[in-house]
Amino acid sequence: MSILVVGSIALDTINTQKASNKQLLGGSASHAAVAASFFSKVNLVGILGKDFPKRHLKLFNDRGINTEGLEIAPGKTFRWECQYEEDMNKRQTLSTDLGVFADFSPELPKTYIDTQYVLLANIAPALQLQVLDQVKKPRLVVADTMDLWLNTALPDLKKLLKKVDVFVLNDGEAMQLTGEDNVISAAKKTHKFGPKQVIVKKGEHGSILSGPDGLFIAPAFPLLKVVDPTGAGDSFAGAMVGYLAGTKGGIRNNLKKSVVYGSVVASFCCEGFGMKKTVATSSADIQKRFNLLKKSAQF
Amino acid sequence: MSILVVGSIALDTINTQKASNKQLLGGSASHAAVAASFFSKVNLVGILGKDFPKRHLKLFNDRGINTEGLEIAPGKTFRWECQYEEDMNKRQTLSTDLGVFADFSPELPKTYIDTQYVLLANIAPALQLQVLDQVKKPRLVVADTMDLWLNTALPDLKKLLKKVDVFVLNDGEAMQLTGEDNVISAAKKTHKFGPKQVIVKKGEHGSILSGPDGLFIAPAFPLLKVVDPTGAGDSFAGAMVGYLAGTKGGIRNNLKKSVVYGSVVASFCCEGFGMKKTVATSSADIQKRFNLLKKSAQF
Repeated sequence: MSILVVGSIALDTINTQKASNKQLLGGSASHAAVAASFFSKVNLVGILGKDFPKRHLKLFNDRGINTEGLEIAPGKTFRWECQYEEDMNKRQTLSTDLGVFADFSPELPKTYIDTQYVLLANIAPALQLQVLDQVKKPRLVVADTMDLWLNTALPDLKKLLKKVDVFVLNDGEAMQLTGEDNVISAAKKTHKFGPKQVIVKKGEHGSILSGPDGLFIAPAFPLLKVVDPTGAGDSFAGAMVGYLAGTKGGIRNNLKKSVVYGSVVASFCCEGFGMKKTVATSSADIQKRFNLLKKSAQF
Repeated sequence: MSILVVGSIALDTINTQKASNKQLLGGSASHAAVAASFFSKVNLVGILGKDFPKRHLKLFNDRGINTEGLEIAPGKTFRWECQYEEDMNKRQTLSTDLGVFADFSPELPKTYIDTQYVLLANIAPALQLQVLDQVKKPRLVVADTMDLWLNTALPDLKKLLKKVDVFVLNDGEAMQLTGEDNVISAAKKTHKFGPKQVIVKKGEHGSILSGPDGLFIAPAFPLLKVVDPTGAGDSFAGAMVGYLAGTKGGIRNNLKKSVVYGSVVASFCCEGFGMKKTVATSSADIQKRFNLLKKSAQF
């Protein structure tokens, strides 16, 4: 099965304490689509400017990512620059230039509207809603978000959450949304906004899936070194939904494994700037890490 | 098999944002011994003052904890007072009164020197060494520590670590000891100080066991509410060594499970002030949580 991915497509400039990399392919939808493409075909929705390098479009197409839903608008592609601190869990945004993204009003091509698996990667909840409303009969709706929307678009987010099956957010966001000071109680309280399944991401500490089958405590893949964590959360969500769409056996049966595949693909993302390491990774590399993680978590 | 536990025995006053509790039974050895007593007999070593409440000694004895190795000295029992912040991972020490602990020079009773499982709970490394040197032929030596000894007694700690099989420390300590900024690489680098097995505790995020069989990523038991985390790390180590001493099948085979039992007993410790909840817990409660944690971590 295919998955539909909507989100941002950006050119990122990323500075760490050790290196700087300019105009990398980035944005929530790019990371999520590439991560999903290990497991399923992808219908990508987004907007980009005339300046968007052709080689990035080729990369999408070479990976089975359908770019028919990408609008190429006059103007510049969304650009974002950040600076990571010594502690890579902390970063500052240095500049944001929305470019054509400022007027993004997603319209799905007809070939997309029957897609059954929908990943609303991190963008404004109003845009996520606009896309979701165009999908005919979604079988699984997964949404990611960020603290910005909790602060500036909470009513939209709450409206969206009523239509979401799996909601992905990080620990700080879950605590902000629910007012809880404990991740577990925050995860549980998030259900009251609508989603039956809630996944709270804890970065290097793994993630917690809360749902009708109880809690699943998912490990992160243990990395000796993080080069650039940008896009790890988007890769996590992309791989997770891609795995569910590409694997037989039913969503509920495969959900735990999908979270672990999400962790694994996110771990590759962290090992290179932008998605440099992700695109150099093979399905066999992913399976090897999945097996190792399974062995490391068993008792 | 019995385990030998040495460490501090204290009367703790613990203040959280919600309540204050005075003169609770505390100290690394008390927490570790009580946690171990779910699984094995314990030979306890420590010092206390004439003011130490008899009911605490009775509690030890009722749980199969041998108190022959407790020295009752003229003077006051070690007292410690702390204040937890809103974020329970942060606390301030308000006062420390060493009392008789200042002159502690542990001497093992003859009945203790053949104990095969040794837990050197958190006290000065020189005292840990002094005890270890009196044990005839230890089969397993486990040591815990704290940042204070990294800052003030590093040469002693390094001397001790050459004789330790399993070293337990928290993530911040592991990074401080090794100079690494990543928990996984810090765990791996800690082996060079001697211990074949290193356990890095990450509080609510579980722990990492690094050893000849690779990494084991152990989950913490998910708690909805933490009342008082004091002693959780000591309980973790105590339950771990107690389980190893009390279970057939060999140390290496049981090590992963021992870490999970450590997490489980630590979770009970966190749910009450001091060890109030721990002592109200049954072996069946522990097994139930172990089974639930196993189910929550499987995929």
